[in-house]
Amino acid sequence: MPSLYYSDAVCSKPLFEQVKEKIIDQIRKGVWQANAMLPNELALADMYSVSQGTVRRALQALVQEGILVRHQGRGTFVASFRRNVSNVKTRINWFESDDVTLKVGQSKIVSFEKIAPLGKVLQRVGTQQGERVFHIRRETSWAPNGEVVCFDDIYLPERFYPGLTLEKLTSSDYPIIYAFYQEVYGVTVTHMQDVARAVLLNPEQAQKAGVQTPFPGIMIQRTSHNSYGEIVELRFLLNVTENQSMILSR
Amino acid sequence: MPSLYYSDAVCSKPLFEQVKEKIIDQIRKGVWQANAMLPNELALADMYSVSQGTVRRALQALVQEGILVRHQGRGTFVASFRRNVSNVKTRINWFESDDVTLKVGQSKIVSFEKIAPLGKVLQRVGTQQGERVFHIRRETSWAPNGEVVCFDDIYLPERFYPGLTLEKLTSSDYPIIYAFYQEVYGVTVTHMQDVARAVLLNPEQAQKAGVQTPFPGIMIQRTSHNSYGEIVELRFLLNVTENQSMILSR
Repeated sequence: MPSLYYSDAVCSKPLFEQVKEKIIDQIRKGVWQANAMLPNELALADMYSVSQGTVRRALQALVQEGILVRHQGRGTFVASFRRNVSNVKTRINWFESDDVTLKVGQSKIVSFEKIAPLGKVLQRVGTQQGERVFHIRRETSWAPNGEVVCFDDIYLPERFYPGLTLEKLTSSDYPIIYAFYQEVYGVTVTHMQDVARAVLLNPEQAQKAGVQTPFPGIMIQRTSHNSYGEIVELRFLLNVTENQSMILSR
Repeated sequence: MPSLYYSDAVCSKPLFEQVKEKIIDQIRKGVWQANAMLPNELALADMYSVSQGTVRRALQALVQEGILVRHQGRGTFVASFRRNVSNVKTRINWFESDDVTLKVGQSKIVSFEKIAPLGKVLQRVGTQQGERVFHIRRETSWAPNGEVVCFDDIYLPERFYPGLTLEKLTSSDYPIIYAFYQEVYGVTVTHMQDVARAVLLNPEQAQKAGVQTPFPGIMIQRTSHNSYGEIVELRFLLNVTENQSMILSR
C-alpha cells in the first residue's frame, strides 16, 4: 500500500517543519512581503491549528535561516536587507579587516554591461533562451582610496532584474547590494553557497592590491538563491588576504 | 542600588541559558563524562525547577553547539568524537574533495617531537613556565599514496597530554584525532576558531601536492578550546585546493 506509506512519511515530518513551510509559502506568494509584520504567535497557532510552542519553534528556525527577523517588543518581520544590515553583513561577508577599527569595506562599481551568457560557469544561472545577463565588476577596500581587498564579478540574470541600469544601481544609497535587489526588484536571497579555492592574483589585481606577484588570494564562487531555489545571483569574489582574513567559528 | 541592578541583570538572562550553563558545569566537573547519558527532560526540569520546554531549548542549543548529541529513541548523551564521527568530521573539516566518491582523507603522521614553545604563535597556547609542547606533522590525501591535499602542523600543550608518545598516537585506530584526545586524555573540544589566509606552497609542499610553483593554498590557523575556554590544540592546516575546495553555506 504505497499511498499509506507516503502518507506516513508526510505525517512523520515534525509539526514545526510543516508550519515553517506554510510560512515560507505565504512569503513566496507575496502575502507577506519584505518588512511585513507577521501575525503574533497565538494568531499563527490558531491559523495553523498547532500549539504556540510549535509556532515559536518554526519562527525561531526561520529567524536563524535569515528569512524572518525579530524586533524586540515589536514583533516578527519578513527579513529586509536594509533594516537588518549589520546582521546581514556578517552573514554574507566571511572576511574581516585585520585592523579592528575598520568595520565596513567601501565598494565601487568599475564596470557594468549586459552580456550574452557564455561558458560553463554562466550556464549555472539557468538563463532562458536568448536571455541576457548583467555583469557588474566591483572593487572593495577597507578605506576610501585604499588598496583593493576584494575583486567582485557579479552576474545577474535579466529576468529577475528587468531594466537594470548602472544609474539605478548607483542612484540610491543602498547599504548593501542585496537590499537593492530586494527593495527594487523584490528579490530576497534566502540561501547562499560559497565554494572557496586559492588562486594567484593577476598583475593588474596585484598592482591594485598593492602587493608583489606572485601573490595568492582566496576566490569564492557564490550562488545566491531565492526561496524558490532559483539562482538570482552568481558571483566570483577574489579576496586578498594581505590585510584581512576569513574568520570561521563553531 | 547596584546590587539590585546586578540582580536584575542576572535574572534577565533567559532561563534556558541558565539551564545550559548548569549542564555545562556538570560536564566540566566530570559528573557527566563523554558518552554519558543525561537524565530525561522531565527529570532535568525537576532538577532545575524549570519547565520541560526550557530544558528542551537548553538541550537543543547544546546539541547545536556539539556539546551534546541526541540518539533517536535512546536519549541525549555527552558528545563523543568517536560515536559521532561522521557528524564531527563535517563539523571540523571545511574542505571537500571535488571527486564526490572520495569522502574521507587519509592522514599520516610524518614527524613527532617534544619542543620548547617558541615564537609569538606558540605563546597563544598559554603554556606554563618550562612547559613543553608536542609538535605533530601530518599529511593528508584523499587516496592512499595520492597527492597531499593538506599539510598539518599540530601543537599540543604537554599539561593536557602528559606522557604522549608517537606510539600512543598511532597504536589505536581512532577515527579522528579529536577522539584520541577525548578518550585517552579526557580533552573534549567544544569550540574552534579558524582564521584563513591564502599562502604560496613551498617547493617541497608543491612537489608532494603534485603541482608546479608558484601555487597557492589556503592556510587555516585553528585554535581549539575545551569547555573552560583553554586552548587545547593549536593547528596550522595548509590546504591545497587543486582537487578539493572549501564549502560554506548559509
